[in-house]
Amino acid sequence: MALYNARKGFNVGLTVGGINLNRGFHVIAGPCSVESAEQINAVAAHLAGKGVRILRGGAYKPRTSPYSFQGLAESGLRFLSDAARANGMISISEVMDAESLPAVAERVDILQVGARNMQNYSLLKKLSQVSKPVLLKRGMSATIEEFLLAAEYVLQGNDRIILCERGVRSFEPLTRNMLDLAGVALLRELSHLPIIVDLSHSTGRTDIVTPLAQACVALGAEGIMVEVHPNPSAALSDADQALSFDDADCMLEAIEPWVELRTRLEAQRERSEGRARSTSTIVTAASSGAQRAR
Amino acid sequence: MALYNARKGFNVGLTVGGINLNRGFHVIAGPCSVESAEQINAVAAHLAGKGVRILRGGAYKPRTSPYSFQGLAESGLRFLSDAARANGMISISEVMDAESLPAVAERVDILQVGARNMQNYSLLKKLSQVSKPVLLKRGMSATIEEFLLAAEYVLQGNDRIILCERGVRSFEPLTRNMLDLAGVALLRELSHLPIIVDLSHSTGRTDIVTPLAQACVALGAEGIMVEVHPNPSAALSDADQALSFDDADCMLEAIEPWVELRTRLEAQRERSEGRARSTSTIVTAASSGAQRAR
Amino acid sequence: MALYNARKGFNVGLTVGGINLNRGFHVIAGPCSVESAEQINAVAAHLAGKGVRILRGGAYKPRTSPYSFQGLAESGLRFLSDAARANGMISISEVMDAESLPAVAERVDILQVGARNMQNYSLLKKLSQVSKPVLLKRGMSATIEEFLLAAEYVLQGNDRIILCERGVRSFEPLTRNMLDLAGVALLRELSHLPIIVDLSHSTGRTDIVTPLAQACVALGAEGIMVEVHPNPSAALSDADQALSFDDADCMLEAIEPWVELRTRLEAQRERSEGRARSTSTIVTAASSGAQRAR
Amino acid sequence: MALYNARKGFNVGLTVGGINLNRGFHVIAGPCSVESAEQINAVAAHLAGKGVRILRGGAYKPRTSPYSFQGLAESGLRFLSDAARANGMISISEVMDAESLPAVAERVDILQVGARNMQNYSLLKKLSQVSKPVLLKRGMSATIEEFLLAAEYVLQGNDRIILCERGVRSFEPLTRNMLDLAGVALLRELSHLPIIVDLSHSTGRTDIVTPLAQACVALGAEGIMVEVHPNPSAALSDADQALSFDDADCMLEAIEPWVELRTRLEAQRERSEGRARSTSTIVTAASSGAQRAR
Repeated sequence: MALYNARKGFNVGLTVGGINLNRGFHVIAGPCSVESAEQINAVAAHLAGKGVRILRGGAYKPRTSPYSFQGLAESGLRFLSDAARANGMISISEVMDAESLPAVAERVDILQVGARNMQNYSLLKKLSQVSKPVLLKRGMSATIEEFLLAAEYVLQGNDRIILCERGVRSFEPLTRNMLDLAGVALLRELSHLPIIVDLSHSTGRTDIVTPLAQACVALGAEGIMVEVHPNPSAALSDADQALSFDDADCMLEAIEPWVELRTRLEAQRERSEGRARSTSTIVTAASSGAQRAR
Repeated sequence: MALYNARKGFNVGLTVGGINLNRGFHVIAGPCSVESAEQINAVAAHLAGKGVRILRGGAYKPRTSPYSFQGLAESGLRFLSDAARANGMISISEVMDAESLPAVAERVDILQVGARNMQNYSLLKKLSQVSKPVLLKRGMSATIEEFLLAAEYVLQGNDRIILCERGVRSFEPLTRNMLDLAGVALLRELSHLPIIVDLSHSTGRTDIVTPLAQACVALGAEGIMVEVHPNPSAALSDADQALSFDDADCMLEAIEPWVELRTRLEAQRERSEGRARSTSTIVTAASSGAQRAR
Repeated sequence: MALYNARKGFNVGLTVGGINLNRGFHVIAGPCSVESAEQINAVAAHLAGKGVRILRGGAYKPRTSPYSFQGLAESGLRFLSDAARANGMISISEVMDAESLPAVAERVDILQVGARNMQNYSLLKKLSQVSKPVLLKRGMSATIEEFLLAAEYVLQGNDRIILCERGVRSFEPLTRNMLDLAGVALLRELSHLPIIVDLSHSTGRTDIVTPLAQACVALGAEGIMVEVHPNPSAALSDADQALSFDDADCMLEAIEPWVELRTRLEAQRERSEGRARSTSTIVTAASSGAQRAR
Repeated sequence: MALYNARKGFNVGLTVGGINLNRGFHVIAGPCSVESAEQINAVAAHLAGKGVRILRGGAYKPRTSPYSFQGLAESGLRFLSDAARANGMISISEVMDAESLPAVAERVDILQVGARNMQNYSLLKKLSQVSKPVLLKRGMSATIEEFLLAAEYVLQGNDRIILCERGVRSFEPLTRNMLDLAGVALLRELSHLPIIVDLSHSTGRTDIVTPLAQACVALGAEGIMVEVHPNPSAALSDADQALSFDDADCMLEAIEPWVELRTRLEAQRERSEGRARSTSTIVTAASSGAQRAR
């Protein structure tokens, strides 16, 4: 495997909107699709009140069938970014092609590349030339090496990349995809890039999100992504996997003691490694979360 | 499954450059990448001499790594189309994005969408607006339904689509992908679209291409695609799977009696169905191959 | 890969009940489960009338759930072997464990090892000590190498082994398993063992059996296995995939010209290789089918 | 899915040798194969000194090739059980067939069924009649439902079953199998059976065992299984995945604070649910570990 820019130890942190994604445990939440200003505002207000700082919402939707809801496009982007700003959050949304890239890059803070486009190299090359960070989802059946090499396309010019594991295709009918947490552990060994785990697309269920979120904390992932909707059963896309506000609250409360433990352990490790003195000021400024240390 | 335009019985034939792809058995052959005018001319001259009428060759290459050979781009297209024309063949090459689409559409006769872009819906929508036929490869782990729904994006405006099975990702290390010939049989049940089987990308080997080509004839596929290179071991991409001229000749000779049998059986069936009289003139004009009849 | 006994060229033919399985194209057919003497007799009489010479039928059934029909056991074996003998056929049935092995080996001509037991090495070792031929099904997700190495366990003492491809587990919901015909082609390259393709368990459907059976002929497989039931919708197991008598007749008729072509081509090849004279007497005696020649 | 005995809430705890496997977090460790009395004694002494209470070691080995080391058989069982007893541990070893079942059941405390035998129903039926607990490994590509239905075979007569996730077959070359931790979370939703995660067979690596072990604690699994060898590079089987003593010590130390947190959280939950009073005596007696509470 010939990896260059993505290799472990290459850089020291990815900061966006004052949030250092290489430190602490980050929750990215919001609806699958932005459906209206009211919907995204309600989600943003609720999540911000619970300490969530990154708001997701699809405006351009890659749908398997041309006859499915395709998203609100530019008005969706506007609703999303307005809701994020009004609630002190940063925003993330998917970019599907070169044409809509300027519109998305203007409005949102993190540009998401979906699983279906992980090997859309023309799009990746465009993203290597923008100044916004990119969250790259793992392809539907991409190997770890292919995933890192896709990141490498963006890294040719843009070093702010976040990897996102979202499960791979498998034979198991009870989950939408097969979540590859060993792959996450391996990506942390091979690369310095922060890694987010999408628990909604991977499982396609809501009943196992909380234990898996706890596992992601303990595993060392930089964060999770989950879908949250004011009224999941009425969602225009992926209704089965959206958490209600109550579900989301339970999950956020459940992971708290695990995040605290990780923060404490990482602080201990830093102190014992004698590096505490030189980095502590930066850490305080950049994030109240845990240190990524290995 | 809500399939509309792709459903079986919807149309009656896809003709390109005087070749009816819904009738007979078609061989698409040529190098993985166009490497030089000399290379593609040598391949074209050899294959045309053996009766092959469709020349393939990549000019824009989707490569897993940004550090691999990326293709000759526009000059590759020119070399390909010149070689095809000089040898009385039609040409096919991959289009990777909206930007290069005009250049590819101007030069080649069939626009190929690679497996990595099967769900690049922005590109598919563009292709629904062009006047050239499109060969759509099955995604790396796409289901049959997802494959047909991707075709449906193109069918919104362009009904000249050819499906191409190229194997799906699996656990088996001895073949590059797992060739899904039952999927080909199923696609022929569900859809009217012609289906080509890529034996090079699916197997990644040369030693089993001939028996599988025979199987494709007997199965009812509209044709096969194979990689042929003047000097496989020196190929700039996918060297392991390219047939030498000798390999290609053996394969073409081996399938001949099977194609003859199929042609004879289909002619019999047409006669016995009393349709022989009304279509025979067209058939003779359009193709010396077999009838697709089901 | 360290293969010893299974390697290509090692032996010259597997004959059972006067049928040489290394020559010609063989159809193994019958119900998934033997349900009654009447049922198996009806199937045997019908199939024998169409030229089928090998009768299948499960007496001991490996069922995913302990609450499903488990087979008629010894009386099932008796019904099967009586029906086969009465119709001039040979019989095949599954053996699930060492305990029932003597009963199965006493009654039937070919002992089948199911996919779930492909790596039940204790059972394989027992089978290396019996005098009956063994049909070994590929495991649910076994690689080609693992499949050949499982055969190797039997080959330690029993060289009459038939391999049976029956599809591997995949993500595709429209077929029960993914039929790996490239794997069949590869097995023929790597090994001398005859290879049967189970079209019922692999596809789980009846509508694509005929084109796939034709493909198996052209590919060079030694035969196919299909499930046939007098009244498929009333079958006690695997009702969706059983062919009716009419379905079976259509399929048998459809493959006939393809088998004839193969027989003719193989005879030509033998003559041109100058081996015709030395083997023709044996061939005539052993089988009226095609020569396996590569 | 028709699950009967395995359904959630059916029983209250599986105790073996004074260890309640439904409470706390358990580490099962030891070499892949028992190679000598010295080897297994060294491992047992080391692990017991670190608080590990369950010793694993293979005596009958299911090997893909008949030419690989097949285990020490009965003397291996004796070495294992002697080493366990001498160090105050309980033992677990694989049973491969009905013949060796009495020998294994006489010597070891927990009978392991390997992935290759998950659907060896004859063996499962035998195990439903023994008085020892059974650890059932998930088949190489078994669905969650098939896994639970296999357990159901044993549950017909033996309710002491432990499930063991060990990864499923996938396309990813960097890990031996794909560890399905979402499947573990789901099994905990569907069933009351304790679940152990085999981190050695699933990953086939040693470098990601520690973060994954932490994830298993946070996820709620009842424990992990790992291979430990005094000199991994000299192991007679699966050398790549065995932890050295140092590796094992690091892992055991790393999970300690996570296990403590889980124990504390579960105790809190029990108290808040007002159930503390009625169960606390039993808990203290049965295990110093955490409560399994949901």
